[in-house]
Amino acid sequence: MVKINENFAKLPGGYLFPEIGRRVRAFSAENPPLPLIRLGIGDVTQPLAPAVIEAMEKATAEMGKKETFRGYCEEVNAAYDFLRYAIRDDYKLRGVEIEDDEIFVSDGAKSDCGNIGDIFGVDNVVAVCDPVYPVYVDTNAMAGRAGDYDGEKWTDLVYLPCTAENGFFPDLPADGKVPDMIYICSPNNPTGAVATREQLQTWVDYANKHGSVILFDSAYEAFITEPDIPHSIFEIPGAKTCAIEFRSFSKTAGFTGNRCAYTVISKELVRDGVSLNRLWNRRQGTKFNGVPYVIQRAAEATFTEEGRKQIQETIAFYLNNAKVIREGLTEAGLTVYGGVNAPYIWFRTPEGYGSWEFFDKLLHEACVVTTPGAGFGPSGEGYIRLTAFGDAEDTKEAVRRIKELLKK
Amino acid sequence: MVKINENFAKLPGGYLFPEIGRRVRAFSAENPPLPLIRLGIGDVTQPLAPAVIEAMEKATAEMGKKETFRGYCEEVNAAYDFLRYAIRDDYKLRGVEIEDDEIFVSDGAKSDCGNIGDIFGVDNVVAVCDPVYPVYVDTNAMAGRAGDYDGEKWTDLVYLPCTAENGFFPDLPADGKVPDMIYICSPNNPTGAVATREQLQTWVDYANKHGSVILFDSAYEAFITEPDIPHSIFEIPGAKTCAIEFRSFSKTAGFTGNRCAYTVISKELVRDGVSLNRLWNRRQGTKFNGVPYVIQRAAEATFTEEGRKQIQETIAFYLNNAKVIREGLTEAGLTVYGGVNAPYIWFRTPEGYGSWEFFDKLLHEACVVTTPGAGFGPSGEGYIRLTAFGDAEDTKEAVRRIKELLKK
Repeated sequence: MVKINENFAKLPGGYLFPEIGRRVRAFSAENPPLPLIRLGIGDVTQPLAPAVIEAMEKATAEMGKKETFRGYCEEVNAAYDFLRYAIRDDYKLRGVEIEDDEIFVSDGAKSDCGNIGDIFGVDNVVAVCDPVYPVYVDTNAMAGRAGDYDGEKWTDLVYLPCTAENGFFPDLPADGKVPDMIYICSPNNPTGAVATREQLQTWVDYANKHGSVILFDSAYEAFITEPDIPHSIFEIPGAKTCAIEFRSFSKTAGFTGNRCAYTVISKELVRDGVSLNRLWNRRQGTKFNGVPYVIQRAAEATFTEEGRKQIQETIAFYLNNAKVIREGLTEAGLTVYGGVNAPYIWFRTPEGYGSWEFFDKLLHEACVVTTPGAGFGPSGEGYIRLTAFGDAEDTKEAVRRIKELLKK
Repeated sequence: MVKINENFAKLPGGYLFPEIGRRVRAFSAENPPLPLIRLGIGDVTQPLAPAVIEAMEKATAEMGKKETFRGYCEEVNAAYDFLRYAIRDDYKLRGVEIEDDEIFVSDGAKSDCGNIGDIFGVDNVVAVCDPVYPVYVDTNAMAGRAGDYDGEKWTDLVYLPCTAENGFFPDLPADGKVPDMIYICSPNNPTGAVATREQLQTWVDYANKHGSVILFDSAYEAFITEPDIPHSIFEIPGAKTCAIEFRSFSKTAGFTGNRCAYTVISKELVRDGVSLNRLWNRRQGTKFNGVPYVIQRAAEATFTEEGRKQIQETIAFYLNNAKVIREGLTEAGLTVYGGVNAPYIWFRTPEGYGSWEFFDKLLHEACVVTTPGAGFGPSGEGYIRLTAFGDAEDTKEAVRRIKELLKK
């Protein structure tokens, strides 16, 4: 009899977004007094940039002719030189030297953050921020690194609280348990906080000292507006020997429906005498065949002068939404974080309200869909996440409704 | 200190295709007397069908407009209804009833065949055919299900020999070790053999009796020409309670550079009280975000009347190459298998030649690149694989050269 992976049975059934979906559907069936505005799930709404569309049209035409047709991508790491070189050169613009064979192109940062576990042993200690993007937790739970779920936390994970007190950036673990795999996301989902150079240096030094690996998710780096904030962990001295960086075109260039991301592993990252770059190359070479040619061309176009300009305009549009939310909620008397270097706004629920209670209140009385902070981990209790990816008018209207509600 | 997955260290370094590449590069550097003809790697060469190109152009235009832009695919199993319904209806044409939520769309059968292991325990006994597509073996080795490599075989795998004696289809295991996970590929890569209804029924009955799961790879089903051969394991009574089917647009519609495939898991497949369909849904929902919208539209177009007709023409073109190879090599006195219901031709090396020796002879004396059968497993020794995916003129010329060489 085949044995199933018993770790799956430990996963709690009520995943955050399905539960939100359930509540929203139930409310919608009751004929809400106002049209619903969805500022919950972090999906983009603006179309692909014209330069990207043009590249996709051209690549599609190539695929229709025998002379220019492309089958399997046989180039390094199953990605075309043109894209790996463009990514390498983009790092160079920020003063980071990455070699093109240190870049792995994939269909998404979610895939990479999940699949990266394949190259690590099951008996590693995993640290996650709290609150946290659930994929880091669930993929490690599936692999058997999380232990058991006690209704609030996983027994074997090290939780690093990120609260207003520490500026939503984790302190080094206080007790004796040294984590081997450390997930850090900056700009942060869900809190919208961003790590400074000094904060990241602390963790890089810690990881190098203990032989740990930092799994650094910088999917939202394009939203950084303040000049001194690092966009890449590799801007921090020592990061190449201890960090893996995940990046994505999803939020940078509106690729959530186009599916393209990349992971960078320096050849200097070696553990037990083994190059993690070579391990990931072997993993990807065995279980992955690359990203569609048209999508690789689309991604390349985001690095052209025209593409960059167009993408910046869209990011400015979303950041303006963030500003509207941040300022509006602050005027309404709420304590608001994020939204300056990130598309997420994180605010404290008013006195006496838990995350889900205030989520329900906003849904039922303002007809605005948000995300309860408690869904991202125990330290998210008492917070709500809003996203800046909505329509400009809808965003303004949502803020107006929330202000009005809080005046009552 | 982080622990790496120690199973990676057990993988033999000299993977088949890199070794072929090395020998071909070395020979190319010696100024070969004739232009090289590559009939080794199984990649397609004909362009995408016009109906597919048209669908991609239309979808690209939609992605450039706010009103029709698509972000994350929020539909069932992260695939659009239009594609899942088209696949479901295609099964129906062959008399197979599959529900649309039993279909999981992905970026490739290689990804699915590799990732499917996530839902199974590490302590399952795995059976593979010998010779075999290396991905089944390597992914299980990475997961720790293969034991150690002794230079020829993995200690914990059950090898099912597929030889001329059993028509290249595996007999049920003779000894007491019952495999839990059984990989079967028909039409077969590398042998080009195809399983009959009766042969598949034997394994379906065996799997149902023992609670095993058949991992059925039918990536080449579009090449079946004989009427009574099943295209899907689900044509076999009892398969829904014991089999997972992997399919791909790669060879069916020339999508090796477009990346789209699908996996079918019936809701009737339950082990230990758990639905494998739900497990795979959870795995994919946690580690995967679906296939690009333009690619899903491209895949949909292969099921239209026009798309089907165009794709059939390309398959007929490749099957004609297969016929040229099969007939030519037979005339040259070789013992030839496959090439009737598959794009692969599998032939015995002449008396006194091992796989790699004859590979080298064909490379050096006919300037034809092939794949040595020994690279697919011990029972592949003494065979060579040729693919029908080449150019028509090149294929004829390759056969002419091989015939001439064997006359000497």
